Amino acid sequence: MKKSIVLAALFIGGLTTFAQTKDEQTLKEIYKSSLTNAKCYPWLEHLSNTIGSRLSGSAGADKAVLYAKAQLETLGLDKVYLQEVMVPKWVRGEKEIGYLQTGNQKVIFPICALGGSVATPKTGLKATVIEVKSLEELAALGEANVKGKIVFFNRPMNPEFVETFKAYSSCVDQRSSGAKEAGKLGALAVIVRSMNLRLDDFPHTGATNYGDSVEEQRIPAAAISTNGAELLSKSLQANPNASFYLKQSCQTFDDVLSYNVVGEMTGTEYPEQIMVVGGHLDSWDLGDGSHDDGAGCVQSMEVLNIFKNIGYKPKNTLRVVLFMNEENGVRGGKEYEDQSNKNKENHIFALESDSGGFSPRGFSIDADEANFNKISSWVTLFEPYLIHKFVKGHSGVDIGPLKSKQIVKVGLQPDSQRYFDYHHAANDTFDAVNKRELELGAAAMASLLYLIDQNGIQK
Amino acid sequence: MKKSIVLAALFIGGLTTFAQTKDEQTLKEIYKSSLTNAKCYPWLEHLSNTIGSRLSGSAGADKAVLYAKAQLETLGLDKVYLQEVMVPKWVRGEKEIGYLQTGNQKVIFPICALGGSVATPKTGLKATVIEVKSLEELAALGEANVKGKIVFFNRPMNPEFVETFKAYSSCVDQRSSGAKEAGKLGALAVIVRSMNLRLDDFPHTGATNYGDSVEEQRIPAAAISTNGAELLSKSLQANPNASFYLKQSCQTFDDVLSYNVVGEMTGTEYPEQIMVVGGHLDSWDLGDGSHDDGAGCVQSMEVLNIFKNIGYKPKNTLRVVLFMNEENGVRGGKEYEDQSNKNKENHIFALESDSGGFSPRGFSIDADEANFNKISSWVTLFEPYLIHKFVKGHSGVDIGPLKSKQIVKVGLQPDSQRYFDYHHAANDTFDAVNKRELELGAAAMASLLYLIDQNGIQK
Repeated sequence: MKKSIVLAALFIGGLTTFAQTKDEQTLKEIYKSSLTNAKCYPWLEHLSNTIGSRLSGSAGADKAVLYAKAQLETLGLDKVYLQEVMVPKWVRGEKEIGYLQTGNQKVIFPICALGGSVATPKTGLKATVIEVKSLEELAALGEANVKGKIVFFNRPMNPEFVETFKAYSSCVDQRSSGAKEAGKLGALAVIVRSMNLRLDDFPHTGATNYGDSVEEQRIPAAAISTNGAELLSKSLQANPNASFYLKQSCQTFDDVLSYNVVGEMTGTEYPEQIMVVGGHLDSWDLGDGSHDDGAGCVQSMEVLNIFKNIGYKPKNTLRVVLFMNEENGVRGGKEYEDQSNKNKENHIFALESDSGGFSPRGFSIDADEANFNKISSWVTLFEPYLIHKFVKGHSGVDIGPLKSKQIVKVGLQPDSQRYFDYHHAANDTFDAVNKRELELGAAAMASLLYLIDQNGIQK
Repeated sequence: MKKSIVLAALFIGGLTTFAQTKDEQTLKEIYKSSLTNAKCYPWLEHLSNTIGSRLSGSAGADKAVLYAKAQLETLGLDKVYLQEVMVPKWVRGEKEIGYLQTGNQKVIFPICALGGSVATPKTGLKATVIEVKSLEELAALGEANVKGKIVFFNRPMNPEFVETFKAYSSCVDQRSSGAKEAGKLGALAVIVRSMNLRLDDFPHTGATNYGDSVEEQRIPAAAISTNGAELLSKSLQANPNASFYLKQSCQTFDDVLSYNVVGEMTGTEYPEQIMVVGGHLDSWDLGDGSHDDGAGCVQSMEVLNIFKNIGYKPKNTLRVVLFMNEENGVRGGKEYEDQSNKNKENHIFALESDSGGFSPRGFSIDADEANFNKISSWVTLFEPYLIHKFVKGHSGVDIGPLKSKQIVKVGLQPDSQRYFDYHHAANDTFDAVNKRELELGAAAMASLLYLIDQNGIQK
């Protein structure tokens, strides 16, 4: 080998080592900051325990907007502002009542209205129940077998999936479309087994969607706890003619004004290139939305706090966006994209955390091959932090609408085993979040944003 | 290339693919069995909620021995038996009392005796407190500053470590040796900050060791909760002369007879080659030892249940060993090794689960380079199950004494973030264990044992 080539190789090797060392050093500082000096856990404590649930259009959502804005203002960012967005306002009303009557015996079940559901008549409704395991089974039964009945969707999440989100997505059609399809066949109401892998007594809410159904076909929809579903199924086998009483008084009002909360560190070299990090500030109304998605919001805010603490000024503009209304409309995500188009903004990267505040395992990457390979090549940098999963896939619901030509979108993937124990239920509360797991997620997010900022994306 | 070489290459390629496919298929069956048909969670429920804590020499430990043996007998193994082992018997006695007195004001602190500690005088003891951060600081203070005082060890676990066991091992000398060292300098007692990364009100017990100290130098040792430690430190800054009252009535009795519980599937091809899988059946006395180490026991039992369910008969002998007395003596581990030597047994492999029933992340491997590389090469087989961590390191305390010439030893490594929230404390209870996380750990263990059984170890 010629001497000059050897020297060049040594020089390039030296540069690589230097870059690697600098990146390694920065990731170390990021993790140290997050594990010793973070604000995300006390922020979440306030969001969860002082403010509580934050359903779009609720007083809690309003308070959360003001609180998040005020906290971002303490970080010395270049801009903090609210972005107006009209959101649906659905209110649960009185505690729902559901019981099965066999002769004189009433057995009460833990149920809750699904988000967006209509109410029952004021005195409730009562009908016999037909159990099905799928929308297909419902369709096969047809109107003759369904009309005038309550349809009980009871397909459990499949425990064989190692990743629980896969079990969720292969099961959630019952909740999202069950009422719509049963309504078309003349059913009086639907009861849906909660999307929960655990057997317990919490009914899990979540959006149901009537699509373009006419008003008469829009029937009340309720979730039943997994223990409740097991018991109801057994009870119906013993007494197929038992009737179920359901009462719920939920209501949909006119849309109301709410906000995305935005904070920004303006890029020092490429201010026109925007990197977004975010989660959604709204939650369902039963718990306080600590995992879904208080965790993602405070982790996103923490990224900017970390950069401030370690003195890192991004070259590209880094924008934290706390989206409103992910749960029942994605209005915040759509509005953000609309405004971005109007302002001819150039988004190069978006990172969402909306899978719970559990130990981070990696990233789900929505990008072309070149960018996927580029991000995956950083796996060794993440190795000391036990981040190992770099997979192609869905990024996040709120950043979904962002469609700049070159944008790379990523979702943080925490350990998913416990997520559906809490998802959309009354036990999604602050005590279910571990401080270190939350902080490690924020550090993983900051690390990825730092690497994107340093290295850019492939165009 | 010659045709024959191409054919040979194709043939070898075909064999590799076939082997890979067979292994892939078996791992799939193992995981399916564990996630849909496991007994480990109900086993743990019984151990934790019906039997409860299982400190060596206690009634709970006796019941656990009988229960585990009876459950193993339901699995249709080739042998199930008890192995006698003499264990220490230490009893906590009455609930400990600790308070700081400043003038007429008494502030009560959450404390508990450390395992193996001596009692205070029956009426308790009272002394001023000197706070130190390390054994080195204590030594530097010397007898003049320590004599007649209570020494308060208050070095927190370092949150910067991503892996919490590293934070533990760099901190636990205060608990294990603090009393011994302070006793030599004439201290009256020690109070040790709990080994817990979280701020809460649970004191965490654990073994303290007087070594060869003479009786007069064996002083009472108590743990204080992390919140308690923070408050005590602040209180002492405000009132350095305040005195602390400590009363505990713990006692050490003569050794008693207990047992390791052993179950065996005799190898179909190499019955003389033994693979061990195990955890420890004893626990501390404050909680019910669900994570430490009920989880490891039921996961080890589950491995045999999985093999039975999928119809896998190991070529080598597979032995589950539930060791007695890991917490305060390791007598079970030592006895097992002694008996193994006496019987001239040949152990080729041992796997221990004793780091909690959390989401499994990988394996800590105590082996030579060849075997480490061999095991690490299976990483792609484990990828679908999110097992990514193959590191050299400590395997387990109970299998530590096993020293066959060729043995490969491995410890399951679950996610460690929450472990020290519960470790040795009253909140190490069944509700802190997630069913799926427990089952995934058992499946990872069964998968590794299957691969070792199929491929052997490098000799």
